Amino acid sequence: MKKNAVVLLSGGLDSATCLAIAKAHGFDCYCLSLDYHQRSIAELKAAKNIALHSGAKAHKTVQLDLSLFGGSALTDADIDVPESETEGIPVTYVPARNTIMLSLSLAWAEVLSAQDIFIGVNALDYSGYPDCRGEYVKAFQEMANLATKSAVEGRKITVHAPLIDMTKAEIIVKGTGLSVDYGETVSCYQADDLGRACCVCDSCRLRKEGFNQAGIEDPTVYQTQPTS
Amino acid sequence: MKKNAVVLLSGGLDSATCLAIAKAHGFDCYCLSLDYHQRSIAELKAAKNIALHSGAKAHKTVQLDLSLFGGSALTDADIDVPESETEGIPVTYVPARNTIMLSLSLAWAEVLSAQDIFIGVNALDYSGYPDCRGEYVKAFQEMANLATKSAVEGRKITVHAPLIDMTKAEIIVKGTGLSVDYGETVSCYQADDLGRACCVCDSCRLRKEGFNQAGIEDPTVYQTQPTS
Repeated sequence: MKKNAVVLLSGGLDSATCLAIAKAHGFDCYCLSLDYHQRSIAELKAAKNIALHSGAKAHKTVQLDLSLFGGSALTDADIDVPESETEGIPVTYVPARNTIMLSLSLAWAEVLSAQDIFIGVNALDYSGYPDCRGEYVKAFQEMANLATKSAVEGRKITVHAPLIDMTKAEIIVKGTGLSVDYGETVSCYQADDLGRACCVCDSCRLRKEGFNQAGIEDPTVYQTQPTS
Repeated sequence: MKKNAVVLLSGGLDSATCLAIAKAHGFDCYCLSLDYHQRSIAELKAAKNIALHSGAKAHKTVQLDLSLFGGSALTDADIDVPESETEGIPVTYVPARNTIMLSLSLAWAEVLSAQDIFIGVNALDYSGYPDCRGEYVKAFQEMANLATKSAVEGRKITVHAPLIDMTKAEIIVKGTGLSVDYGETVSCYQADDLGRACCVCDSCRLRKEGFNQAGIEDPTVYQTQPTS
């Protein structure tokens, strides 16, 4: 019998690759997305398509309005998404977002008797978010193993972050080998409703450079054509 | 200038006492409740009243439908609340609930520049929930200090669990000394819409014994009169 895993799926390039890796490892995948009233809803539509086409066992989208707290360009209409590289942790950082998403996946994992959670964070080509680092993922796993009835009864949780040490180009090469259709994914922080990317935010920049470095054609549809 | 703290407030006896303790320590308190589609909505009404009467700076209720996952008598209408003491961790356990609530409080704390979070868990007179133990709270704090921009920049988070080693009777004595109006609080897992307690669930039983042992009159309004 196959084992169940909960896979966090944003609809972006990283999480789609992470899902393909979980599937390749033989897990039955239960995909979880979070509608936190982020700026772009295109990524949630993308997540739905990716889950469907990957043969996931189920896909749930949790409604949780993080604009209640504000504090991020992705949830607060008064803060603009920066269109050039910035110093330090950028305003697109959403307070405690990965902690909230991992907590929700932990709840579902327990109900599903799943002992495996997959999250597509990576610590190299990222925007400096603290909750994308290996030491953070490890600390979450330790906490999770004290938090739940299942874990206390001996069914320990493993939080897998298979992309953690990969560059964006390596992720794209890996996913391409696993037949990920990157044309379905949306990485842009401010994609339009058709999923077309802005081409200027941090996330677009990292994605574009990744395809360039991987020597793989970029299937992303941009609102305007990239200059490089 | 007073420091800000986020206080998790369920509307029960423990969290109301925890709020009074945070206030007595000189914090400006921002109270957070979770509407997770629990069986009893009376406790959410209680939380609102308690926050108001305590002089909290703000009170927010996050809407998050945990019945999406099920797996608990408190969120799944198909699982009955037990009416006598049970072996092991009971079905009223909600998967990862405290982890989800602490994660949300971490998000708000970061936006408020608060470095202190209060949670009213206690490890003695409780129902055996794994996420009510000191080692769990400590592990959450360690994870939190790797998770956020604030923490990485040096503003460390402390998760206070001032009730952790107290019996229910000690909590009641402490809160009474801090003028907590326990008549406002609702602990029952299946209180009716007027906030009247069932008198038979685990939570009612622990609360009733607590007042008895403290030698303090129990202000709880029951649906039927208790037999002891």
